[in-house]
Amino acid sequence: MSTVLTGIGIGRGVAIAPAHLLLPAPEPPADEPAAANADAAIETVRSAFATVSTQLSEAAANAAEPLSSVLEATAMMALDPTLSDDAASRIRDGVGPVTAAAAAVEGVATQLEALGGYMAERATDLRGIRGRVVATLLGEDASSSAALATRSIVVADDLAPAQTSTLDLDLVAAIVLSAGGPTGHTAIIARQLGIPCVVQAVGALEVAEGTPLAVDAASGRVVVDPSAEQIADLQSSVDREAALAADTAPGATSDGHPVQLLANVGTEEDARRAAPTAEGVGLFRTEVLFLDQATAPDAQTQTALYAGVLEQFPGHKVVVRTLDAGADKPLAFLSQADEDNPALGIRGYRLVRTAEALIQEQIEALAAASRAVPGTELWAMTPMIATPAEAADFARRARAAGVATVGVMVEVPAAALKAADILAEVDFVSLGTNDLAQYTMASDRLRGELSDLLSIWQPAVLELVATTARAGLDAGKPVGVCGESAGDPLMALVLTGLGITSLSMAASALPAVRYAVRHHTREQCERIASAALSARTAEEAQRAAAGLVADDVRTVLGL
Amino acid sequence: MSTVLTGIGIGRGVAIAPAHLLLPAPEPPADEPAAANADAAIETVRSAFATVSTQLSEAAANAAEPLSSVLEATAMMALDPTLSDDAASRIRDGVGPVTAAAAAVEGVATQLEALGGYMAERATDLRGIRGRVVATLLGEDASSSAALATRSIVVADDLAPAQTSTLDLDLVAAIVLSAGGPTGHTAIIARQLGIPCVVQAVGALEVAEGTPLAVDAASGRVVVDPSAEQIADLQSSVDREAALAADTAPGATSDGHPVQLLANVGTEEDARRAAPTAEGVGLFRTEVLFLDQATAPDAQTQTALYAGVLEQFPGHKVVVRTLDAGADKPLAFLSQADEDNPALGIRGYRLVRTAEALIQEQIEALAAASRAVPGTELWAMTPMIATPAEAADFARRARAAGVATVGVMVEVPAAALKAADILAEVDFVSLGTNDLAQYTMASDRLRGELSDLLSIWQPAVLELVATTARAGLDAGKPVGVCGESAGDPLMALVLTGLGITSLSMAASALPAVRYAVRHHTREQCERIASAALSARTAEEAQRAAAGLVADDVRTVLGL
Repeated sequence: MSTVLTGIGIGRGVAIAPAHLLLPAPEPPADEPAAANADAAIETVRSAFATVSTQLSEAAANAAEPLSSVLEATAMMALDPTLSDDAASRIRDGVGPVTAAAAAVEGVATQLEALGGYMAERATDLRGIRGRVVATLLGEDASSSAALATRSIVVADDLAPAQTSTLDLDLVAAIVLSAGGPTGHTAIIARQLGIPCVVQAVGALEVAEGTPLAVDAASGRVVVDPSAEQIADLQSSVDREAALAADTAPGATSDGHPVQLLANVGTEEDARRAAPTAEGVGLFRTEVLFLDQATAPDAQTQTALYAGVLEQFPGHKVVVRTLDAGADKPLAFLSQADEDNPALGIRGYRLVRTAEALIQEQIEALAAASRAVPGTELWAMTPMIATPAEAADFARRARAAGVATVGVMVEVPAAALKAADILAEVDFVSLGTNDLAQYTMASDRLRGELSDLLSIWQPAVLELVATTARAGLDAGKPVGVCGESAGDPLMALVLTGLGITSLSMAASALPAVRYAVRHHTREQCERIASAALSARTAEEAQRAAAGLVADDVRTVLGL
Repeated sequence: MSTVLTGIGIGRGVAIAPAHLLLPAPEPPADEPAAANADAAIETVRSAFATVSTQLSEAAANAAEPLSSVLEATAMMALDPTLSDDAASRIRDGVGPVTAAAAAVEGVATQLEALGGYMAERATDLRGIRGRVVATLLGEDASSSAALATRSIVVADDLAPAQTSTLDLDLVAAIVLSAGGPTGHTAIIARQLGIPCVVQAVGALEVAEGTPLAVDAASGRVVVDPSAEQIADLQSSVDREAALAADTAPGATSDGHPVQLLANVGTEEDARRAAPTAEGVGLFRTEVLFLDQATAPDAQTQTALYAGVLEQFPGHKVVVRTLDAGADKPLAFLSQADEDNPALGIRGYRLVRTAEALIQEQIEALAAASRAVPGTELWAMTPMIATPAEAADFARRARAAGVATVGVMVEVPAAALKAADILAEVDFVSLGTNDLAQYTMASDRLRGELSDLLSIWQPAVLELVATTARAGLDAGKPVGVCGESAGDPLMALVLTGLGITSLSMAASALPAVRYAVRHHTREQCERIASAALSARTAEEAQRAAAGLVADDVRTVLGL
């Protein structure tokens, strides 16, 4: 008999395949005796950390982005002397060497967990190191358990990037985690690669190896040992998603009002993958190139990286966002004072106050890349703008460097309120709905407890989106949305109705959004938007919008 | 010849009096030898920390609020075993005992400083402990240098609360610090007590003992050895402030449109001091009663404390704000997970999600206090409301407990945008302009670098204030302002022009605001408000408003 596990789905994919359990990494032996020769044991442990680091670097070299960057960062963590020094001191205190190495990693992982949020999810990366170091010290092959012989659904407690790296991703039909979080690395990677994924699927580890599973990410459901009927149902979903994906026409309403459908990318590899289905790039996150670097990449390196992305979209536009780093996403080479509230601190374009040369150099590299790839339109925009004066400052710099089309992100409430004044200074704006909701509702994106307040469906947030869209219509200038909300088909209809001119999302979300937009007239979208806008709560807004969706779209997309 | 030192003025007071230098506390002897008997020395140091803690507790018992709470908190810091354990381990390592005690305190102070912002200013409190411990160990009387024989202007590098406690505040004409910060304890206490104060007056420590000083807090200037003419100038300012303070009529424009002028208070003592000049209390910050408590005060204690404040304003209203604590202002008995961005986290009324009983008990204690003091109108409001649903939830609880008049703070942008919907649920709202600016501009209040963005004069912030005021006019319900901006006479005119019905501020700011409001018609205020609202930058808004102020008011208030 089939049972159903429910968790949090990532993306909209579906898959049917046998389960392959990734068992937890080996544990140190119980009651391990103290090393006879502490110095030799310390040397062995140090060299095990180095071996693991090398394995991870090699895996990074063979992996695609974003996994490659994550593995490279994990490889650097493995070399952190804190780990081997801590292990050494435990060995000197008489703790067995394997136990000491594991405890040293675990200690740091626990500290990260205590920090909560994003940092807590980095603990999983560290535990991947722990498993590999223990396996290395015990002479086991850490990668063996991960080897997939056939197309399978990977089931695990949580996956560290170090484990993900050992998987042949072409054979991974889906990923099901009993733990994990929707912002963890596995979820990020799955979303980016379009692999169906369900996290927090309690009970998943009790599934026997080889049991058939049916995963439906849109509903967050995992059917264990599905019946023929359940398989047929899901197969029709698979077929439906495939049919949606086959349509790659430019985005437009059924009566021909164009809405550009763009992809969010972080690397050239992302851009290459997105090129067949997207009309261009609505958000190229350049900070990916700066993370985990000991120094800022030089102008030439930057220019080459940007040009690599531009080349994927000849004849189209690529909207590049300048460095969105700061106290909230620290860069190794930008030493910043600890901030009490990094989300409210020196981040995004505010870095011009503390690291002007870095910003200036990036703008010049963008202009150089644009000259190098004349077939692609480069639009440059900068994040965390609060005032028209800041927008004007960025526009002046970018135009002086030779960038033709200049814009800013609207993600601070003040920028939405003053969108008309900001649009007087720049050629376009793009709404970052995640941050806009965070500030408008004064609710941290990293706090699960406040997720009810954080929704873009909150009437106050919708009102700021509408204000910004109206300013764009009045000025005759493009207003895009590049937050996660653009990838939700129902919200995409609302945004279209508000007059948003482009929607940028993970490439895997494009087919469903394209389908939804193509099956409504502009006027229908306007009615959906106005129903959402006049609601008094987020739930009411979402319900009111859903109530006006065309029946066939509701059926096909399961709205 | 007179010289002028310039710093940051706190409040608007002026004073002329001789300087009294508070020299730094004694230092440990240079090259202090190791203790002959480490255990005995450790015991002596432990007992010195305990003595200091007792001294500070005694000083707390004799001091008025807010100093009393600060001293009590410092007394608890002195008992922290981290300090004596650290000193003990240094003594065992052969460091001289006085040097070890001083280094232990200094170590923690340095760590606090590294945290920046509010925590950094707590380092000054710790250094007050250091000085007292060193003095105790050296057998000196820590309080002797602070004794004032005559009315004086106290000059110091920085004042720890432990030093402030030794001063006879009735003899302190003004305080001048060469260091210190505008949010440090000395500034807070000076503002609350109406003592003229200038911080960051570089060069102040070079003034000789007894030199005449003239302090003008409004301009942040300290004239050293002032000429007869300078004294006469300043004397006229003194007379002017005294004349302003003598007027205690209810607030109104020159054509009789009422604008209630209320005080912000934290304790019964504040309320008693404010009663002669304020028409009531616009913000009673109840968290003061919870800070530095090991457990939440019980219902009976709370009721008595609230009643004590209500009794100071018979026939008037007292607006009580429920607990505005959370990750940003941690309470000892509410153990909260560390948050990445406490300002965007579980704070204010959001505590109902995690500590419902605490909120419920406070609401009941407020209702009980209101019944106990029937001559005063108690208005209850709650902070950090983002949605009409949250406002309705608080209103339901408060009305069920028997509170007659119920409102919420508007400090989250969403609440301002949806003020009309929120006013449908409650009887009044009060704008917290500091937090509203923080969230609207996405700029941390604790970050000095972003203070240009944080101004309430930012057009986007003014727009949200105007939206809220308009919603109040439409609903026929009161909209107050209780942020610091209400105490700025120019901003008070703007707020009056927007239709704000009450302004609540530190009692010392009332006379100048009353004067400004009484010397303009309502229509003049409306013109000032609309000039500010239509500006494109904060500076322009302030300039436009100032340009329309009546000439006599500009002269008298120095606007």
